Amino acid sequence: MPAASAPTAPTAQDIAAAQARIAPWLLRTPVVESRELGLPFAVELKLEQMQLSGSFKARGAFNSLLSLPLPEAGVVAASGGNHGAAVAAAAARLGVQARIFVPEIAGPAKIALIEAQGAALEVVPGFYPDAFARAEAWRDRTGALMIHAYDAPATLAGQGTLMKEWEEQGLAADTVLIAVGGGGLIGGALAWLGGRRKLVAVEPELAPTLARALAEGPDAETDVGGIAANALGARRIGRLAYDLARRRQLASVLVSDTAIAAAQARLWHGLRQWVEPAGACALAALTSGAYVPEPGERVAVLVCGANPAPSPF
Amino acid sequence: MPAASAPTAPTAQDIAAAQARIAPWLLRTPVVESRELGLPFAVELKLEQMQLSGSFKARGAFNSLLSLPLPEAGVVAASGGNHGAAVAAAAARLGVQARIFVPEIAGPAKIALIEAQGAALEVVPGFYPDAFARAEAWRDRTGALMIHAYDAPATLAGQGTLMKEWEEQGLAADTVLIAVGGGGLIGGALAWLGGRRKLVAVEPELAPTLARALAEGPDAETDVGGIAANALGARRIGRLAYDLARRRQLASVLVSDTAIAAAQARLWHGLRQWVEPAGACALAALTSGAYVPEPGERVAVLVCGANPAPSPF
Repeated sequence: MPAASAPTAPTAQDIAAAQARIAPWLLRTPVVESRELGLPFAVELKLEQMQLSGSFKARGAFNSLLSLPLPEAGVVAASGGNHGAAVAAAAARLGVQARIFVPEIAGPAKIALIEAQGAALEVVPGFYPDAFARAEAWRDRTGALMIHAYDAPATLAGQGTLMKEWEEQGLAADTVLIAVGGGGLIGGALAWLGGRRKLVAVEPELAPTLARALAEGPDAETDVGGIAANALGARRIGRLAYDLARRRQLASVLVSDTAIAAAQARLWHGLRQWVEPAGACALAALTSGAYVPEPGERVAVLVCGANPAPSPF
Repeated sequence: MPAASAPTAPTAQDIAAAQARIAPWLLRTPVVESRELGLPFAVELKLEQMQLSGSFKARGAFNSLLSLPLPEAGVVAASGGNHGAAVAAAAARLGVQARIFVPEIAGPAKIALIEAQGAALEVVPGFYPDAFARAEAWRDRTGALMIHAYDAPATLAGQGTLMKEWEEQGLAADTVLIAVGGGGLIGGALAWLGGRRKLVAVEPELAPTLARALAEGPDAETDVGGIAANALGARRIGRLAYDLARRRQLASVLVSDTAIAAAQARLWHGLRQWVEPAGACALAALTSGAYVPEPGERVAVLVCGANPAPSPF
């Protein structure tokens, strides 16, 4: 068998096709403009944490399961929690077998969420790479299709539908702040937007995966930790996102765990949105002053996930 | 001094004027259409619990403070919690002195919310009528203006802006379900809509104030309790709302506390919205089967408050 050619980022057409494919299954998440976040300017937000399974990951999961040829053994995924919940939710609704490997760091709330979808679940001691290795072994043994959390064209095409949808909803901002873990979400956004609008990547200081890669190259490995680690704790940036980020000269802004927790509180007090740390990470760049808009620059924040631990239920 | 004429419900023009007055201060709360609430049909929701101070009450509070002549002694309000938080928030932003009387039943989360706005606060042993009596005494002693929680034209005009806004946002539903306590919210909605669309009042079985009044007359007094009592526990329906409800032959649907708690869980699991019991009361009519739409009838639910106890913070 000849070596497969390297995967390539989705085109705008791929993203439009993904949107048509997944729309019947997913929420058109609302947008809002708030002046109650303790900032001297209004911020547009897209509340993607309201999405099915509690994060944007459902977009890539549904697009993958609806567009890729599925073997009888079904699908397998490794995940810090949100991607696993999304794949499990998509698999349950589409009648596909799924097996999810999560590291212990996923935590009880996310583990319970995956179990509630009825997927086969294995909790793996260690971190995301440990869960990923177990998922690869399962794939090799059973022939199941691996649904990558952030570095596959179908995943990026699904995540790219988010920015397309936001533009359709009248996004006015010049600049959109997006939290980055492995790069699937921002990669999809870059793939959709091309050079339109400015994107700012926001990462925890304790999981600066993209920043490290932009400084040292795509194969850089990063130690990851902190309060958002189960969602933003990829050790290595996805290659598709890396290439897009380099081409667009994307900057990564870093925020402390304290700033992330403070942004979580702002989202509750200002908008009654109770999100996980990763979901508040992008806002934290504004509320901490790590990113200061130019005079007149209109900014938007993507709220990407709400599977907090503990959950209210 | 001649007796004042009886207050009258606001006109559509009053509500439009209120909207122009309060818009700079308030959130245009988002709308969403969800299929993830465990129902065999989609539901439109307006997420008014994201409003400043955590409930729709901010609309009436801002409209009152911006349209009524304010004495030097400022304003006074009695409240189960949400109206007090709204008046306190409006007063703080508009530079008006406010004193809020709440019954103990308001609970620590709402009391903390009012205190955080900087208003003078008194916690009164007993229930809402006890707090109201104390607020009247304060008004009589100081000359402060009473901002009624649900039975004053300026309050209704403010609450009426909600349905106007929702229609501007493309509300498609034939029928809108709205939780009822003292009737300010549904009174404002009736005043705006006139005969357009069907409204359904939803009340806790343990606080059936409107249902009792519709059966026994406007002066009926109702024992109130249950998990939504601090928000929906008016003992007597507002006269303005009562008259509007009678004229439109409004029906009140009752839901159990168990159904309300289950609807709270649906809002979390399906939309990651963590709301107080009153905020889930209208949805409970659908999810419990207390209100079953006709085939083809499109329904919408107003999510009106999110000051749960305990708060996540």
